[in-house]
Parts: sequence; structure tokens; C-alpha cells
Amino acid sequence: MMSDLAKLLEQIESLDSELHLKDFLLTWEQTPQELEQVLLVADALREMRNQNISSRVFDSGLGVSLFRDNSTRTRFSYSSACNLLGLAVQDLDEGKSQIAHGETTRETANMISFCADVIGIRDDMYLGHGNKYMREVADALDFGKENEVLAQRPALVNLQCDIDHPTQSMADLAWLKEHFGSLEALKGKKIAMTWAYSPSYGKPLSVPQGIIGLMTRFGMDVTLAHPEGYDLIPEVVETAKHNAEASGGSFTQVASMEEAFKDADIVYPKSWAPYQVMGERTELLYANDQEGLKHLEEKCLAQNAQHKDWHCTEEMMKQTKDGEALYMHCLPADITGVSCKEGEVTEGVFNKYLVDTYKEAGWKPFIIASMIFNRKFAEPAKVLKELIERSQKRVEAQ
Amino acid sequence: MMSDLAKLLEQIESLDSELHLKDFLLTWEQTPQELEQVLLVADALREMRNQNISSRVFDSGLGVSLFRDNSTRTRFSYSSACNLLGLAVQDLDEGKSQIAHGETTRETANMISFCADVIGIRDDMYLGHGNKYMREVADALDFGKENEVLAQRPALVNLQCDIDHPTQSMADLAWLKEHFGSLEALKGKKIAMTWAYSPSYGKPLSVPQGIIGLMTRFGMDVTLAHPEGYDLIPEVVETAKHNAEASGGSFTQVASMEEAFKDADIVYPKSWAPYQVMGERTELLYANDQEGLKHLEEKCLAQNAQHKDWHCTEEMMKQTKDGEALYMHCLPADITGVSCKEGEVTEGVFNKYLVDTYKEAGWKPFIIASMIFNRKFAEPAKVLKELIERSQKRVEAQ
Amino acid sequence: MMSDLAKLLEQIESLDSELHLKDFLLTWEQTPQELEQVLLVADALREMRNQNISSRVFDSGLGVSLFRDNSTRTRFSYSSACNLLGLAVQDLDEGKSQIAHGETTRETANMISFCADVIGIRDDMYLGHGNKYMREVADALDFGKENEVLAQRPALVNLQCDIDHPTQSMADLAWLKEHFGSLEALKGKKIAMTWAYSPSYGKPLSVPQGIIGLMTRFGMDVTLAHPEGYDLIPEVVETAKHNAEASGGSFTQVASMEEAFKDADIVYPKSWAPYQVMGERTELLYANDQEGLKHLEEKCLAQNAQHKDWHCTEEMMKQTKDGEALYMHCLPADITGVSCKEGEVTEGVFNKYLVDTYKEAGWKPFIIASMIFNRKFAEPAKVLKELIERSQKRVEAQ
Repeated sequence: MMSDLAKLLEQIESLDSELHLKDFLLTWEQTPQELEQVLLVADALREMRNQNISSRVFDSGLGVSLFRDNSTRTRFSYSSACNLLGLAVQDLDEGKSQIAHGETTRETANMISFCADVIGIRDDMYLGHGNKYMREVADALDFGKENEVLAQRPALVNLQCDIDHPTQSMADLAWLKEHFGSLEALKGKKIAMTWAYSPSYGKPLSVPQGIIGLMTRFGMDVTLAHPEGYDLIPEVVETAKHNAEASGGSFTQVASMEEAFKDADIVYPKSWAPYQVMGERTELLYANDQEGLKHLEEKCLAQNAQHKDWHCTEEMMKQTKDGEALYMHCLPADITGVSCKEGEVTEGVFNKYLVDTYKEAGWKPFIIASMIFNRKFAEPAKVLKELIERSQKRVEAQ
Repeated sequence: MMSDLAKLLEQIESLDSELHLKDFLLTWEQTPQELEQVLLVADALREMRNQNISSRVFDSGLGVSLFRDNSTRTRFSYSSACNLLGLAVQDLDEGKSQIAHGETTRETANMISFCADVIGIRDDMYLGHGNKYMREVADALDFGKENEVLAQRPALVNLQCDIDHPTQSMADLAWLKEHFGSLEALKGKKIAMTWAYSPSYGKPLSVPQGIIGLMTRFGMDVTLAHPEGYDLIPEVVETAKHNAEASGGSFTQVASMEEAFKDADIVYPKSWAPYQVMGERTELLYANDQEGLKHLEEKCLAQNAQHKDWHCTEEMMKQTKDGEALYMHCLPADITGVSCKEGEVTEGVFNKYLVDTYKEAGWKPFIIASMIFNRKFAEPAKVLKELIERSQKRVEAQ
Repeated sequence: MMSDLAKLLEQIESLDSELHLKDFLLTWEQTPQELEQVLLVADALREMRNQNISSRVFDSGLGVSLFRDNSTRTRFSYSSACNLLGLAVQDLDEGKSQIAHGETTRETANMISFCADVIGIRDDMYLGHGNKYMREVADALDFGKENEVLAQRPALVNLQCDIDHPTQSMADLAWLKEHFGSLEALKGKKIAMTWAYSPSYGKPLSVPQGIIGLMTRFGMDVTLAHPEGYDLIPEVVETAKHNAEASGGSFTQVASMEEAFKDADIVYPKSWAPYQVMGERTELLYANDQEGLKHLEEKCLAQNAQHKDWHCTEEMMKQTKDGEALYMHCLPADITGVSCKEGEVTEGVFNKYLVDTYKEAGWKPFIIASMIFNRKFAEPAKVLKELIERSQKRVEAQ
């Protein structure tokens, strides 16, 4: 077992990375080696935990969380990640704070960071704003560090924005690497990222965008499919095209789930709101126009209802490579007859892959912990080695 | 002092128990030796704390809490228990999560447990559902562990359900053991679990049920009293009868507080809602029938008001053994003239036993910590011994 | 660097203090040596953190927080302080508790304290009640300790009450000491604590009261200025007068911002509600008189609007010593054109001193940690020395 860890450390050591100098806000801002480093460190942290070796690199310190949207999975993953490293979570609840007061982002960011080692932010509702807000926070933290307001520069982790969902897509990639055996093995594999029907609206674009932005980095054949009018942010689609070219893979857009599923090795059917709707919705949210929001929801649900045939059924799965493509989902899925009357996927298909989707989700705490770890330590392999040699047990009596 | 601990460890070592293989969901599912083990480990953990020996057996790890009802005491007791063992608490706030989404219990249970060592649940409002829900969670956790979704199987602690309130009744038992000197000393002692008037409605049945279900295990003479129509769940009453037979004690039902108090060594006067009302209420809550709930409350309060004479007064206390029975309460009590106009107990009686009831409550953190400890470690005495020998101070400078 | 710490420990050791025997509820209840001790221990804790020496004196333990008013800064400062010392924070959310039930303060205080090492309370909205409530809690904790309900007496920290805001004023003093080099250097310095216009109402009096009550202890020339009708609590003004006399400083009241700023070394322009309004508001809040509260707000805002000339502008700053007085604020400030149309201070003045105000705020976590530390340990220098010799790194790999 120990040899697995030794091998991981060796691989980490061989990589070139600037991860300790930049926040992980979009996967396409990282080099392939940096992405690999996040995967490897996550793997090492998971392996250490399985071997009952504590990864508590911080004796004390705070992990701040700011959730501007409901969350279970990501909230628990973030808590788990902080806890794995020894940080206590302090949530910034904007409702209970004085932020409504008109306080500037610069001020808030500094006020919560005197003893913070990491700040995780989820801000995915406002198209054109979420990622921008994170950068404002990052700048504010740099300002604080430079001006000796802050003794340390907290890592900033994007827990989902309007553009990308890097902790999700990287967990998905870690799962694919585990499932297929290596990153190398992903080359030439076809992944179908397709829209699916759901009786809800306003679902963020960050998951499909994150998937096409990341999977195109590893020589995969990425196919995107959605009904007319359910576009993603054009710049991200451009990014995916460029990525595919650079990595020797491909990026294709098709107009039906059937076509996307054809010979696919992996399928990722998931609902999202059209880009244009998210833009309109953002304006209505800012204006607090309840009437307008209600009207938009109705319109959007009616539009959705025309595409109930975008449904991941047993029939549909037969289109895939040997009828046995790997089904993925960020969860929770809208399961027909379980969580809703008609949804993204049938109960039969979902249950066949249920354990797979759970394992997929299980990577998230370690991916987040890895992002924090890589941002804080310039030589992650060296630090991990110290922790392994220290050999503090996570559970004393095991 | 150290010898007290040594003696406790010896006693723990001598017991046969399967506690590490099952969740503690109902006291009557545990053997007498298992119940004793929970008391002894709680005692050892308390003694260690008093001697400034850290019981932090976990270097890191999460304790998840899910409160489906308001709580102060139990919330703080659970936090304290987790903290005693080294676990950080992460609350699952269903309002801030995506659970409303129709997510299955299996999925939620796994998603929050990747790094969880314990999950504590309070679900006491819905008759016929709370304990059942905990078992669904338990099954989901077993499923996750078996399918390698979870690296560890979190302990599950019942922080109060519709049937039992095991952390309360076990804390009560620990207090009785401390007060009377031993479990042996409880044999033949008469305890009166009686209904008392309160100007509120909808109080759970789990406390009186927990008391009659547990105290009948130790050869006590348990007397239950309530006005007509304030029945407990019939199956639990049956359980109490069987318990009493098996332990050589007795279980008696009488129709007045006076009769119950007669020659009692211990009295536990407390309000609860009739079983039938709780059933009706559950249906109305599920249907979100506000009108119906309001109507039921009025009806129930009017019914209550006919029984204001179920009042623990100085006069009433004179009925008890030498007029000096021990008064118990899970707190907060409805104290006449203090927290309400007319309530369960007079200020005089309550204040005479105030320190006692506080000490009774003080056992809860240690009982919960003990339940976690016993579920996680097959050889608790051995692990405690290691912790004592490690001799890490809780407060460095003492 | 180490020598800085050694010097601090020497200074701490030389002081006479009873801080371990009393809660820090009002600065004017502490001796000058005790105030100095809080500053020095705060300094040592900060220095230790900067040198990556862990100050985790508690291996485990709870820090309870109770916020009866919104808070960001103080909440994060308190979390940070607890974390610095090794305590986990458990918030008492009165909305989610059973306190509404009519539970007594004595009971609540004991129920949350079985494993608590500190309780921090913010209760600043109710004039005549906040500080009183803290003393009730303190008495309840003493009662619990004396009656063996509690194994330890938690420290009580005043996180802002109706009378004083000691964690703020002490952080302000720490900042002044840092900025001017020593407490000695503050002698004879003129500080102007003046009202300033803000388009809000109901701001607590505790900051200006805290400032005049504390800064008069160190031989400073404290000048208080506000429009007619914006009085502070008369007893606190009396206290400031006595303090000034005793310390060889002065306390002056003037009727305009200009006069107060004249030749000032330090200015602290900040809005507050008139004492009489706060009293009226308290009664309306207790009566839950929404209509009355709305009416009072309107009246008060109209009154405020007559004093928009109480504005800290570049012009106004020219009045101060060499036009270069140090601007202070507890934050968030109402900045004209940034957080409101017309406010306490211009953007130009605020931005010139922005880093200063952030550094001022940065002292708060360490001041709170120091207050806890000094309450828990009779010989703080000795305990700090042990921690330094233990030499546990806060971040393992640095």
C-alpha cells in the first residue's frame, strides 16, 4: 500500500506547476500538468485517509465558505476538505452579516480573512457576475496581503460560478481516470454531454460548460447536444473547440440526444437553462422583479416541455458503445417516477449506474482539499512526504 | 483518581457487547450489558475530562447533525460529544440544501458521509416516521459501505425520534446511577412517570416512552399515569410490561398523579400530547394543512385545560416516599409562574431540585460521546486505555 | 524575532492582574495593568502566529457564541480567536432553540456550558438590557460551577453590549499603540470622537461610549462632539470625566465636528442614535410595535438629515494637526458615494486611511483570544512560554 503513495509522490514531484501562485477559478486557466497535479494530490490525500494517515497539515486555521445558492454536496465536500487539512469552517451568511449595508467586496474579503487559510465561494445564479465576483475577492486578498493587512494570502476556491464548476468537473475527471485506469486511457473516448428534460428551470450552465471545457483537454471526443435555443456561453464553446484541437481530440455539436449517444463511451445527460434565459433571469433577480421571474419561469417550463424526448432511457442507452456507456451525473438527477413525473433519466438506467455516480461524487472532498493544498504549498510532494513520515493516525485506535 | 478510571476500564472490559455492530436506535434493542457499557464508557469519558486527559480519539473527521425540530440541549450535547472525540460538526440544514428536490434518502445519506464518522438525527415530530427514517439512513450507509462508496461506516445516533429518546433516557439513567450509587441500588425503587399539565401541545411522546422502556430493564417499579386519552404508543407500553417481567421489576398504570406519586422514590412529571393527536398532527403536517393544525391545537389545548390538576406541587410531593422523592425532568420544564401561568410544576418544587435536574442534563454530552465511541470501537476499554496512556492534556497548561 | 516574544513575556510577567477571576464586561472595570496585559498577550499571540507557532492551548473544547444582532467582523473575529486557541465554535441560534419557551437565563447558560470554555455574547440593541443580560449569564455560570453542575467556569466575553464594545475599543487601542509606538506615546494626544451623519438609524452607542471610556485611561485628550440631542448614556460620560482626571488627560465636550477636529491627532467620526431614541426603541422592540418602530425611524432619520454637515471631508481633515490626523473607524463606514449617497466620510478621506482602518480591525481576533486566555490562565506568561517551548507549528510545512 505504502508503495502506491510513494509512486504518487514521485509523479507529483515530476510535474511543473504554478498552482501555488494562482487561484483555481477556471480549469482552462491551468496547464495540463497542473490539472494532473490536482488529480494526483487528491489521490494521495484519499490514499492517506484510507491508510489512516492524518493529512492535517494545519494545526489550526479557518476555511471560510460563502454559498450564494443552496448546496448539500458541495457544502459537505468543502467541510470535509477543510477538515481533512485541519481547518475549521466558518460560514459567511450574508443574511446575518452587515454586508447588505453597502460594504465593498474589498472590505468584506479582508475582514473575514485575518485568520483564514482558504475561502470557498459558490456564486452560480447570476450570469456574468459569479466568476467576476471571485476575481474581485482575489484582487482584494492580494491587496490585503501586499499592504500587510493579512499575514497570509488565503487560497480561493471556486465552488461553482456562472462559467465553470471546476470542483465538479475535476471530480468527474478523477472518477473517469479511476474508472478507465489512467488519463492516457481517456484519449479517443467519446463523451456525450447532452441536455436532458427536467421539469425545473434556472439550472446553472456551469456543469455542461465545465465538462466541455475540461474533457477536451485530454484528447477525448467531446460531443455536445441540446435542443435549439439551449445554447451555452459562446466563449466557453470556443474554448472547448480550441482545447480539442490542442489536445488531439475533437469537439462536435449535434442536434439530438440519439446522435450524441451514438457509440459514446460516456454519457452525461443533464438539464440546464438556456444561456439567454439565464441572462434575462439575472436582470430580473437584480431588479427583484418577482412578477417577471414568475413569467420567465412559466415560459421556460413551457419551452422545456417541448423536449421531453430528451430522456435518457434504456432504449437511448442502446445507442452507446456496446450499449454499455458509462452514465455520469453531478447529482441530484431528476429521475422519472422517483424525484419527478418525467425527468432526465429513467429509474432503470439511473439505478444501473447508481454506485458509479456515488463514487463520482466521492471524489469531490479530495479534489477540493487538493486545490487548497496545491495553492498553499509550492512543493506539495515534499509536504505530503512529511505528513506521511510524521505518521499521525487519523483515528488513534486503528 | 487514576484508580477510578482503572476500575471503570476493568468493568468495561468484562462486558459482552455488540455495540460496535449496530446503531443505538432504541434502548430495548440493546442487551443489559450493552446499556451498562454505554454508562461506563460515558463515566470514563467524563472522568478523563475532569482529570484533563484528552479523549480526542479522532485527529480529524466530521460529525453530521440533522435536526428536524428545534433544539438547544441536544444540539449542544451533540456538539460537545463530537468535540470531546475530535470531530467537527457539520449541520445538514435541509432548508439550505437541495433535498426538497426529491432526492432519495439513500443518496443524501451517502453524499454527506464521504468523510463522516457519525451522523446524529433528531426527527421526533412525525409519528410513525422518525425512527423509520433513521433505519432508512442506516440501510443507506450500509449500502454505501458495502459498495465501496464510503470508506467508513458512520455511526448513527438517535437524537430523539417518534418512539424513543435514548440519549435522554440513558442520561437520566446515568444520573440515577450516580444519585443512588449504583444500578443495583435502583432495584425495587419506584419511579412515577406521569403526565403533567402544560399550556402547549404537540410535545413528543419519546421521553415518557423512553423512560418506561428503559427503567423497566433494571428491576425498578415503574408506574405510568396520565389522564384518559393521553395514551402512549401501545407497542411501547407492551415492551415496558415485558421488560419489567424479565428484569424482576414491575410496570403499573394508574389514573392519577396522586396515585402514581404515592411512595415513589423518583417522580418524572411531564406533559405530552396524546398518541392519537400526534397521529392526526402528522397527517396534517404532511398535508401542510395550516387550518387543520390550528383547529387541532385549539382542541388539544382545550382538552389539556381540563387536567390542570395534574400539577407537581409541594402538596403532591408529600405523597412520595418520606415526601422526598427525587424530581426529574428532561428540561425545559413548564414552571408555574415562571415560564407560563400554569404549568407542570410549581416554582418551589422545581427550585428545590434545580441543581439535580441540571446535573441530570449534564450527562447527555458524555452519553452521546459514549454511544459514538462504542459504535466505532470493538474494544472500547483498550482504546480508552491507549488514550489515558497517551496522556494528552485537554488544556495544555493545567 | 524570538526576542520580541521574550520581551513580551517579560512585560506580561511583570504585571499584576485579576483578569483570571473576572469577566471582561466593561473596560472601566479593569485596572490599567489589566488593560495592558490584554494588549500584551494579544501582541504575543499575533507574534506567535506570524512565526508559525501554534497557540492551540486547548486540545478540544467549545466556544459558544450568541449573536442577538447581525455581525460579520465580530463573528469572524470570535471564530478566529476560538480557533487560535483550539476551541470549536458552536453558535446558539435562539431562533432554532427552545429558548422562546420561557426558559430562564440560568438554565440556558448552564445547558450550553457543560463542555464550554468560553461564551461570547453580542447584545447591543436593547438599551439597559444587554450588559445586564451578560451579568445574569455570568451569575448563572458561577452558580453552575459552585453547585458542581459545570466542571469548568467558561470565560464570558462581551462582544458588544448597550454600554460598551470592549473588543472593539481594545482593538482600537492596540492599533493606536502599534501606530504611535507605545502606550506612553499616546499621552497628550488629542482624539476626537465625533458624531457623523448617516442615512440610517438605531446604530448602537457602544462604540463612542467604549472609546471615551477607554481612551481617557491613558492620559489622552479626549474630545466628544455631537449635535444637540445625540447624547450618550450620562453615566458613561461621567466615567470618562473621572478617568481623564485620574490618568492626567482631559475630557472635553464640544458642539461641532470642526471644533473637535481642531489640532486633533486622531479622529473617529461615526454615527450613532441618540440615547433617548435607543431607549424608546427598546420599549417598542419589546412591545413588538412595528408601527411605532417605523414612526420612530422616520422621525429619527428626519432629525439626522438636519446634520448632514457632520461630514468627514478633506476640508474638515485640514483642521487636524498638520492636516494629517489618523482617521479611525470600527467599520463598515458609511462612505459618501460608495455605500450611500451622503454619509459619514468622503471616499477620498476614507481611501487615504483604508489600510489603516483594516489594520485596526485586524487586531480584533487577537484581542478576543487574549481576553479568553487571560480569563482562563492565572499565569499567562508561563502558559505562553510553554506553548512557545512546545513549538508546535501552526502550518506543518513551513
